[in-house]
Amino acid sequence: MSTDARFDGPSALDPVEVNAAVRALFPGSNNECVELGPDFAVARVVAGPDAIRPGGFISGPTQFGLADAVLWYLTFAAVGRIEPMALTSELSMRFLRPAVGPELWARATLEVAGRRNVVGSVRIWVHDEDRPCSIAQGTYALPWPSAT
Amino acid sequence: MSTDARFDGPSALDPVEVNAAVRALFPGSNNECVELGPDFAVARVVAGPDAIRPGGFISGPTQFGLADAVLWYLTFAAVGRIEPMALTSELSMRFLRPAVGPELWARATLEVAGRRNVVGSVRIWVHDEDRPCSIAQGTYALPWPSAT
Amino acid sequence: MSTDARFDGPSALDPVEVNAAVRALFPGSNNECVELGPDFAVARVVAGPDAIRPGGFISGPTQFGLADAVLWYLTFAAVGRIEPMALTSELSMRFLRPAVGPELWARATLEVAGRRNVVGSVRIWVHDEDRPCSIAQGTYALPWPSAT
Amino acid sequence: MSTDARFDGPSALDPVEVNAAVRALFPGSNNECVELGPDFAVARVVAGPDAIRPGGFISGPTQFGLADAVLWYLTFAAVGRIEPMALTSELSMRFLRPAVGPELWARATLEVAGRRNVVGSVRIWVHDEDRPCSIAQGTYALPWPSAT
Repeated sequence: MSTDARFDGPSALDPVEVNAAVRALFPGSNNECVELGPDFAVARVVAGPDAIRPGGFISGPTQFGLADAVLWYLTFAAVGRIEPMALTSELSMRFLRPAVGPELWARATLEVAGRRNVVGSVRIWVHDEDRPCSIAQGTYALPWPSAT
Repeated sequence: MSTDARFDGPSALDPVEVNAAVRALFPGSNNECVELGPDFAVARVVAGPDAIRPGGFISGPTQFGLADAVLWYLTFAAVGRIEPMALTSELSMRFLRPAVGPELWARATLEVAGRRNVVGSVRIWVHDEDRPCSIAQGTYALPWPSAT
Repeated sequence: MSTDARFDGPSALDPVEVNAAVRALFPGSNNECVELGPDFAVARVVAGPDAIRPGGFISGPTQFGLADAVLWYLTFAAVGRIEPMALTSELSMRFLRPAVGPELWARATLEVAGRRNVVGSVRIWVHDEDRPCSIAQGTYALPWPSAT
Repeated sequence: MSTDARFDGPSALDPVEVNAAVRALFPGSNNECVELGPDFAVARVVAGPDAIRPGGFISGPTQFGLADAVLWYLTFAAVGRIEPMALTSELSMRFLRPAVGPELWARATLEVAGRRNVVGSVRIWVHDEDRPCSIAQGTYALPWPSAT
């Protein structure tokens, strides 16, 4: 259980900064930060041919990768800085509907930001945010000792 | 992945009916259905002395029990009938803040209702819904063959 | 991700000590520690009438309560002391088979013990450990700053 | 809760068949089935440069992708046939230790195989199976109506 330290002011970060930092740190990532606020982040990924599994669906790991990325961006927003060593400690996903389309969107919502962890909920969709293809919840651990 | 059969009309059930049926079926339950709509349910439980763990917090299992109950009520609403043999197939919880207070509230939101499963997200709080003490996501399996 | 500090020697604790401490700290708990080693714990609970849900099954929350308890005992064993303020940070359960019988057993296996967290896997059964009625994985957060 | 239909005889499938079928169905997958039995599957993946995240660790999504794949192979073994339309319904992962090395291994263990679902546990490691870098549990839904 986290001591509560919800970030109150507007986030000092914007998507351009986040994307530049992530490209430099983790060039293998195709995910893109689209929007960022103190308690949410929006991301998307274009589904390349490698992401398509039997049935024409965007694969589960592609969805997991986007969920993981959007929670990372949310963590940056929640702590107010790019924190490359924030690491996923756990993430659970539920797949609800086939994901058919050219790109995938995700919104992460901050549930709590503490000294040790940031917890968020994620919704992933193709065309309609109200009909998610998957949902997730997960935890990022902040580096120890945390500078927060 | 569920074939989508989201319930469109208003739920035919109300909390009084749900509570009467649950009391008859499962007299051990202390949880109470407070509000019910086609895609949500609200529940509460009064935390008796057995529910208090070290530190004065309402215990995790009490929170799990309420999450499980509110998802059951949501399942009834989503399929439009009391379905005693709908069973939890999986549920994951994250504990965010100490739960200190006399009673616990929970809101379940429908994520998808299919022929086989109902999936929902849950938020649990003591005083302020915007500062949840725990969050959960889970799946109820409908009886086989489903009458839906 | 936890810095690894797996406890090597035999646990200094035994089930009698654990049960005495838990009874004092958390009198509402019916769960009992049966066996304890440096990287495992075994627990059981007698299912009272309140624990029986429609169909004659031991309820999900009773199973969750036992899973949560056995992970707490495992945490004590892993850190080598009764640690009342170790708190569940997350726990996910999957229900596999009906739990029909007078009592429930659980075994927790240590996955990692770090400075901040203890993670374990749990198997719950009625008659046969090889046919679990549910499985779980979860995380206990150690108090901050941890004395370990 | 699944009606129990655990596969008793030896699996009719072998890794060569599984890999050939998966390469044909899902050419984007780099994961490889290494071993297969009626109640387990072993898989590995070579971590390409795109899989490395800050700190030199094999990324979480790469680990998720391998967990998802090894549960798919386990599902094939449990139902005794290649079942391309078996789909992940939920999967939760816990990250325990940094994953540093050239390749990742995973072992899935069957928890239950029913008419509707197959549930398994997964352990992922780089050098030593007893020191996993992550663990997972998840559910594959079988196509409806299932031929099993």
